[in-house]
Amino acid sequence: MASRQRCLSMDNLNPHIKELEYALRGPLVARSFQIQKELKEGVKKPFTQMIRANAGDCHAMGQVPITFIRQVLAMVIYPAFLDNPHFPDDAKERARTILDSCQGGSVGSYTNCSGLEIVRKQVAKFIELRDGVPADWQNVIVSAGASDAIRKVLRLFACDVDGQTSGVMIPIPQYPLYSATLTDFGLARINYYLDESKNWGLDVLELKRAITEGKKVCKPRAIVVINPGNPTGQVLSRQNIEEIIKFAYEENLFILADEVYQDNVYEDDCKFHSFKKVLTEMGEPYNTVELASFMSCSKGYMGECGFRAGYAEVINMCPKVKVMYLKGNSVMLCSSVIGQACLYSITNPPQKGEPSYESFQKEKNAILDSLKLRAKMVAKTFNSMEAITCNPTQGAMYAFPRIYLPPKAIEVAKSQGKEPDVFYAFELLEKTGICIVGGSGFGQQPGTYHFRTTILLQTDTFKTMLEKFTEFHTEFIKNYS
Amino acid sequence: MASRQRCLSMDNLNPHIKELEYALRGPLVARSFQIQKELKEGVKKPFTQMIRANAGDCHAMGQVPITFIRQVLAMVIYPAFLDNPHFPDDAKERARTILDSCQGGSVGSYTNCSGLEIVRKQVAKFIELRDGVPADWQNVIVSAGASDAIRKVLRLFACDVDGQTSGVMIPIPQYPLYSATLTDFGLARINYYLDESKNWGLDVLELKRAITEGKKVCKPRAIVVINPGNPTGQVLSRQNIEEIIKFAYEENLFILADEVYQDNVYEDDCKFHSFKKVLTEMGEPYNTVELASFMSCSKGYMGECGFRAGYAEVINMCPKVKVMYLKGNSVMLCSSVIGQACLYSITNPPQKGEPSYESFQKEKNAILDSLKLRAKMVAKTFNSMEAITCNPTQGAMYAFPRIYLPPKAIEVAKSQGKEPDVFYAFELLEKTGICIVGGSGFGQQPGTYHFRTTILLQTDTFKTMLEKFTEFHTEFIKNYS
Repeated sequence: MASRQRCLSMDNLNPHIKELEYALRGPLVARSFQIQKELKEGVKKPFTQMIRANAGDCHAMGQVPITFIRQVLAMVIYPAFLDNPHFPDDAKERARTILDSCQGGSVGSYTNCSGLEIVRKQVAKFIELRDGVPADWQNVIVSAGASDAIRKVLRLFACDVDGQTSGVMIPIPQYPLYSATLTDFGLARINYYLDESKNWGLDVLELKRAITEGKKVCKPRAIVVINPGNPTGQVLSRQNIEEIIKFAYEENLFILADEVYQDNVYEDDCKFHSFKKVLTEMGEPYNTVELASFMSCSKGYMGECGFRAGYAEVINMCPKVKVMYLKGNSVMLCSSVIGQACLYSITNPPQKGEPSYESFQKEKNAILDSLKLRAKMVAKTFNSMEAITCNPTQGAMYAFPRIYLPPKAIEVAKSQGKEPDVFYAFELLEKTGICIVGGSGFGQQPGTYHFRTTILLQTDTFKTMLEKFTEFHTEFIKNYS
Repeated sequence: MASRQRCLSMDNLNPHIKELEYALRGPLVARSFQIQKELKEGVKKPFTQMIRANAGDCHAMGQVPITFIRQVLAMVIYPAFLDNPHFPDDAKERARTILDSCQGGSVGSYTNCSGLEIVRKQVAKFIELRDGVPADWQNVIVSAGASDAIRKVLRLFACDVDGQTSGVMIPIPQYPLYSATLTDFGLARINYYLDESKNWGLDVLELKRAITEGKKVCKPRAIVVINPGNPTGQVLSRQNIEEIIKFAYEENLFILADEVYQDNVYEDDCKFHSFKKVLTEMGEPYNTVELASFMSCSKGYMGECGFRAGYAEVINMCPKVKVMYLKGNSVMLCSSVIGQACLYSITNPPQKGEPSYESFQKEKNAILDSLKLRAKMVAKTFNSMEAITCNPTQGAMYAFPRIYLPPKAIEVAKSQGKEPDVFYAFELLEKTGICIVGGSGFGQQPGTYHFRTTILLQTDTFKTMLEKFTEFHTEFIKNYS
């Protein structure tokens, strides 16, 4: 029987799934979990615990949940607590509003596929408050995290047009969800490079170069912009955003604005500008550009990744296409109702005069201040090392330093069949227990090497990590020089 | 500007999304929500409230959540309650176990893409207990409901083989997730008809007829079986399952066993047999058949749809394919951790001797007993009406009665461009406020007409519905005869 051909084999498996790559959950991360087990089992290592700087996972790194959010969620799950004096009235009011809008008064029932009306309306208010321009709640589609929303929009483009594959422009370096999803959907990928020498800035001349190249092999139809940047940590200026919108208008591209780090801006002279706001304020003809903007409960100060909640705001979409988009989404039913409740709490935080206001602000600011401190620390430390340069982390939760690897290290890496930056990351992992992600997982200019580290470790551990890192790096460079 | 061609239009939209149909969220359901709003606004109708029998949504229909499950979930969200004397120790123990296995001790962190190890291990134990045959936790993949798991398995087949489109056999009538997903992925659909005259039985001769037809236009690679049946409510006999497994073996088909209603069996001489158990017990060569079995937290006695949790158990999959399958899933990160915690609570219920055992059993049995009562009531009532026949609801949450529509009704329906059963459903909705789903949304033998009703309304309302339904139906048949 063993020799019988299985009906699903490597020869007849969907080739897109075979091809796709996702470095954030690749062999390095797998090895890190193996090491963690080995440590538990008492295997001797040059270190006693893993230090994870590989994932944008705030709570995993010791960040404490925001009390107000968890109070609201505890009550919607267990409504008997609505009478519990332990909980403040503003949290109770949010919980009641959510329960009243659930069918049967239970978060155990399905909602509309695009989310509860009350959540969508609250998100629209949140956007209006942020941008000072109107938002229509019917343009807000609640999703199982931003990743889910991004996939559902990209999926709309998955077809040939006039005999050409549809193409999507993505930044390099990028968050690997994009490259993997394009492969999955059979979409062509058009790389545009961020300019490391200009703090990972986005240069319109580079966009023009990239699209000209792209047009030789596909039909460019959309552009992805990540702001603040992942893995690169830059925050785009308003002028830069205007240039991108003009470019999209001229080339008739749909803009996908990944704005999940909008609350994570650390440099004093940087400010988050949403594509929606800038596009609206630019007026005609640029305010007709089709745009989907993505937000998530997983980042910011709340970091509630585990709840899988986010949304897309979709504007200027052809109404008939929108009907199809919503129909396509409806097959998968709604996203987690607790996730929706989480999104509601975040977009409807305690206001001045409400009982939780002070403590909410205090918790939120403590987290953002601490991130700011680490953001400053990270570039400073890496720039003080030999053979590393690092742009400032203006926003998001990452630094993406460049490492200048000695030719001997590159040679050894290649002899092991590894990308040089992945080889570096493996060495770091085995010697220090620090887990980062090699730059090749995100893309980089050929011949350059980087890695991504988060700034999410709590400050003391983060300091320890930077010390151990410095020691390792100095040793590594010395050994291979 | 108005005349400018949008970059995403009906002409260049992914055609699969244009084509796909999903009756469970179509115009009828949209109209029902509109009517609900009109009622709130005071618009006069021949009824004062909507009666929803269209969705398998237990809590929406007034079913009360199981206390134990919600206690566990409240504590994992709000760990301060681990010290609250209100909660029983067994619920606390479950909550602690879940929190201990979360990174950073918070359900706000990401888990492994296939779910927390502790949840997968608990599910494997639950399967072993159910089937009496071994289950490997590494074959359990936690998902955002069964729909998510089903899509991820079907996606593996989305490619041509030897120049032929891959095909999947699905029952007719079927749950429309399947037809919609096949369209979405460009997979060919091979219909096999359930035999209404034999209580929606599954006849192997019909499978052979269907696959022979299918082979003329595609490469059949998988078969979907829904047991207990949705929308048809039948429970397959062990012998029938053995026949299907033999057929799958002979034709080298991958089996997708949709077993989300495994706890919903009402007739005394019916028993749920999992495909996994039957296949294993059949021994060689049948125990090598590739199988994915799906389960959900949304159905059964718990009905926690809003948490979006479920799993696939995948056996006999080629190990290399499995690596690809897991890699493909990993791009979407993990499913909701609260959903995972819900799955954990359901697969690890209070045991004899634990403090919540009695109350848990009482709540669970009350729900299942009440469903059983309504299951008996539904077929009896419909069979007492003129021009309707209805097979018994042996399991699941639905009846799928056949309506013998007068030719005049069919004529009027067609003149309005509606399917006759959809016309019937619209008339019922507008006249009585009862919302069901027309049979054409699930598929039916050409020239026959059906509808699906749930049995989820609480017993008093359910009785009222059946009375109003009888009245409407008598009137309808009279008017069109």
